[in-house]
Amino acid sequence: MSDRIASAKLRDKVMSAEEAVQFVNHGDKVGTSGFTGAGYPKALPAAISEKAKAAHDKGQDFSIDMYTGASTAPECDGVLAEAGALRYRMPYQSDPTMRKKINAGEMKFQDIHLSHSGMMVEQGFFGEVDLAIVEAVRITEEGNIVPSSSVGNSVEFLNAAKKIIIEVNEWQSEELEGMHDIWTVPPLPNRIPIPITKCGDRIGTTYIEIDPEKVVAVVKTNDPDRNAPFKAPDEISEQIAGNFLDFLENEVKAGRLAYDGYVMQSGVGNVPNAVMAGLMDSKFENIQAYTEVIQDGMVDLIDAGKMTVASATSFSLSPEYAEKMNNEASRYRESIILRPQSISNHPEVIRRTGLIASNGMIEADIYGNANSTHINGSRLMNALGGSGDFTRNAYISSFISPSVAKDGAISAIVPFASHIDHNEHDAMVFITEYGVADLRGLAPRDRVAKMISIAHPSYRPLLEEYVELASKCKYQATPHDLRHAFDFHLRMEETGTMLKQD
Amino acid sequence: MSDRIASAKLRDKVMSAEEAVQFVNHGDKVGTSGFTGAGYPKALPAAISEKAKAAHDKGQDFSIDMYTGASTAPECDGVLAEAGALRYRMPYQSDPTMRKKINAGEMKFQDIHLSHSGMMVEQGFFGEVDLAIVEAVRITEEGNIVPSSSVGNSVEFLNAAKKIIIEVNEWQSEELEGMHDIWTVPPLPNRIPIPITKCGDRIGTTYIEIDPEKVVAVVKTNDPDRNAPFKAPDEISEQIAGNFLDFLENEVKAGRLAYDGYVMQSGVGNVPNAVMAGLMDSKFENIQAYTEVIQDGMVDLIDAGKMTVASATSFSLSPEYAEKMNNEASRYRESIILRPQSISNHPEVIRRTGLIASNGMIEADIYGNANSTHINGSRLMNALGGSGDFTRNAYISSFISPSVAKDGAISAIVPFASHIDHNEHDAMVFITEYGVADLRGLAPRDRVAKMISIAHPSYRPLLEEYVELASKCKYQATPHDLRHAFDFHLRMEETGTMLKQD
Repeated sequence: MSDRIASAKLRDKVMSAEEAVQFVNHGDKVGTSGFTGAGYPKALPAAISEKAKAAHDKGQDFSIDMYTGASTAPECDGVLAEAGALRYRMPYQSDPTMRKKINAGEMKFQDIHLSHSGMMVEQGFFGEVDLAIVEAVRITEEGNIVPSSSVGNSVEFLNAAKKIIIEVNEWQSEELEGMHDIWTVPPLPNRIPIPITKCGDRIGTTYIEIDPEKVVAVVKTNDPDRNAPFKAPDEISEQIAGNFLDFLENEVKAGRLAYDGYVMQSGVGNVPNAVMAGLMDSKFENIQAYTEVIQDGMVDLIDAGKMTVASATSFSLSPEYAEKMNNEASRYRESIILRPQSISNHPEVIRRTGLIASNGMIEADIYGNANSTHINGSRLMNALGGSGDFTRNAYISSFISPSVAKDGAISAIVPFASHIDHNEHDAMVFITEYGVADLRGLAPRDRVAKMISIAHPSYRPLLEEYVELASKCKYQATPHDLRHAFDFHLRMEETGTMLKQD
Repeated sequence: MSDRIASAKLRDKVMSAEEAVQFVNHGDKVGTSGFTGAGYPKALPAAISEKAKAAHDKGQDFSIDMYTGASTAPECDGVLAEAGALRYRMPYQSDPTMRKKINAGEMKFQDIHLSHSGMMVEQGFFGEVDLAIVEAVRITEEGNIVPSSSVGNSVEFLNAAKKIIIEVNEWQSEELEGMHDIWTVPPLPNRIPIPITKCGDRIGTTYIEIDPEKVVAVVKTNDPDRNAPFKAPDEISEQIAGNFLDFLENEVKAGRLAYDGYVMQSGVGNVPNAVMAGLMDSKFENIQAYTEVIQDGMVDLIDAGKMTVASATSFSLSPEYAEKMNNEASRYRESIILRPQSISNHPEVIRRTGLIASNGMIEADIYGNANSTHINGSRLMNALGGSGDFTRNAYISSFISPSVAKDGAISAIVPFASHIDHNEHDAMVFITEYGVADLRGLAPRDRVAKMISIAHPSYRPLLEEYVELASKCKYQATPHDLRHAFDFHLRMEETGTMLKQD
């Protein structure tokens, strides 16, 4: 293990998490590694939680502001939220305990585009960052960090922080070294073009250069990432994926897409899994991914020779695939690149690749405004993540979702989205198990029938009823009846279902 | 005049607009030059309108789909809308007649990010483009086009169109030649970085290369652009501008902005005019503009030596300044660059410049979601324009607006924006005559007091009333009471004012 810390100077900083937590103080601003349950610190969060609880027991205040790459895990976001150790958190979360605290108004959460989050820290919008806590597979002789299973915002946090704690996690394969491509845009006023023209271009180093003087502690860990078991796609997911693949086929027929070199971005979940399974048997070859997270399905596509390269900032694998990745990292690093999220999600590169974006949603309205974050406008589910980065800048942006949730009680198509994360100017195509609503080139009123056609049949009459009310509006650019715009959501609040009760 | 058409071959194509209109057929898709009342075709629109009316008089269908850069003028959008000659129009408009037709449901309008519009044509999302009609100051010997007072989407339209009509407008100064910088990103899959690192970089040609074989007509005109008289800023505008300039000063104090080399983007109107007048007397030096339109105030800043360079895609000048520009174009082209809007509004370059964006709005809600386009959710005002391109990618994005409109009947701050063009993830700072709401780093609930503080005092109790209702929401991530979210708008509909009537 000690040879994972090649810097003699930093070997001297090795201590336990319980000792290292002395460097974490009430009111600190702390940036950590971690993205979609990969590469987050494993030891310090528990130690910070204990410190917070001890302080609280003595009637003292103790909380920190925490910035990450994206979601982490129960042993990071979960324990910290549970202990009341967080005042503020950004830019993404998906933890059940944290979600509960946020929705109870017990902690603050700001939902920020993933491509903006590190940049905003760099720009000084959060003031001084006290501490960066970053997981590594290895520390080089020069004291630089070889990141583990994600890169996230670590570069920006390590640059900005006054102090650094490194967790060297032996569970992570040392063979991950060489998979990362660390390059970030120089700070203003010296920003330059990002020299990536193809998804697979490598432009940086395999490690993050840091100022070793800032390192106050090195903590050894040996703990797995949060790797959720793979859920086989259900029938609905397969239908949606089928519709998505039909859409791709139609784009090929229309001359707007080639079977060779299709560039994909994909959210995480059942439907993306089904899409990737479908791509396996498709005519698409030399598929590339320019995305946030490497999922099981992409590994399968790489193994099958269907995908030539996958660029992301993190893994989000099942336990089996995480083990495979750890065992065969030296092979996979030929075709997998992990970049800072400021690059994986950068509008500049996203536009350049001409990727087709595909993300989930909570609901969309009849004009094509999409809600990715809030149930009934108020209740935070997870957060925005990179959906805005990709949707706004994709060649074609799509949202994929089952037409209903909660056994039919919630419709994914509503009269007016109760929170709007992606507006009618950004979202192009919506897909459910009932088909494809292609809104490209359509004025608002021409979008309505398309959106209703992909709603669940039990909701179509209710949507038509709203359209009828809205049609009486004095102004027909985007007709609404604001008196009834949220009727679906109000019924849900009152009766537990968006359906009308007889 | 004839030496403005240096190509002998194209001189043979000279004809009147009435003759040239033979090439415009019912159902055609037509892309034209024109951006904010500059550089639009002056003769063909009237001829098309006459052709449409003649057909309609005979009981025949006649309408076209029309794509432009942005807004044009009464003698273009106005006459065409009046004649019922347009089925569909994108991506921006501001014409009173057209607005009326759109809101009456008599023509279709799609509101598209200005940076997306030409790209979507190039990507084939609108199918084949039948005709491009582009204004030029000159046709070169090789048959290439020297654009006039805007570039807009002309490159994309000229590339995509099967036929081309050129209007050579003698009113426009020939000295504009050399002011344009024509470069666009190569089409997919060959997109490359845009080699602009500073606002003033010139990377292309001074003319648009076309296929002269596609030119079916050249029409001579001698007509001015729509140059609206400059309106001196009123007291409220000056107060808002003062708050904006104070905000800039505070950014300098916080170390996040330098007096030297401030990069601005600015919407058009009274408040921007007042801001530019204020910059004249400020400590800011070597100001640069990376924006859509060159306005009077920027010309003043250039003349005063305060602004070193202004990059845009179009002019939007008063008649006096338009005359000055025409007379002294050879001098101004040292410091003014007109680019395709695909470059002036490209996320890639916008991010790189680190500009501070400043745009108007109709309303924003207590959480910082902004509506730029629709009054009461349904009634189209103008359109989105480039506000999304700049807001999403700015170093700091701001919205500036008087706190009330229509003598106090409409509040710019509302509980829930009735149309959301810029969401809480994009908008950072809101400014009215009552102050600055800086939302950076704030979770939703912490934004509310800031937003209410810049509302008009007569609306603050009503906003507090809503916040009180929303505070009872079971979920406190972004508390709303959807039952009352649109009360302001409904009162406006019912009583003509958002204020409560006793």
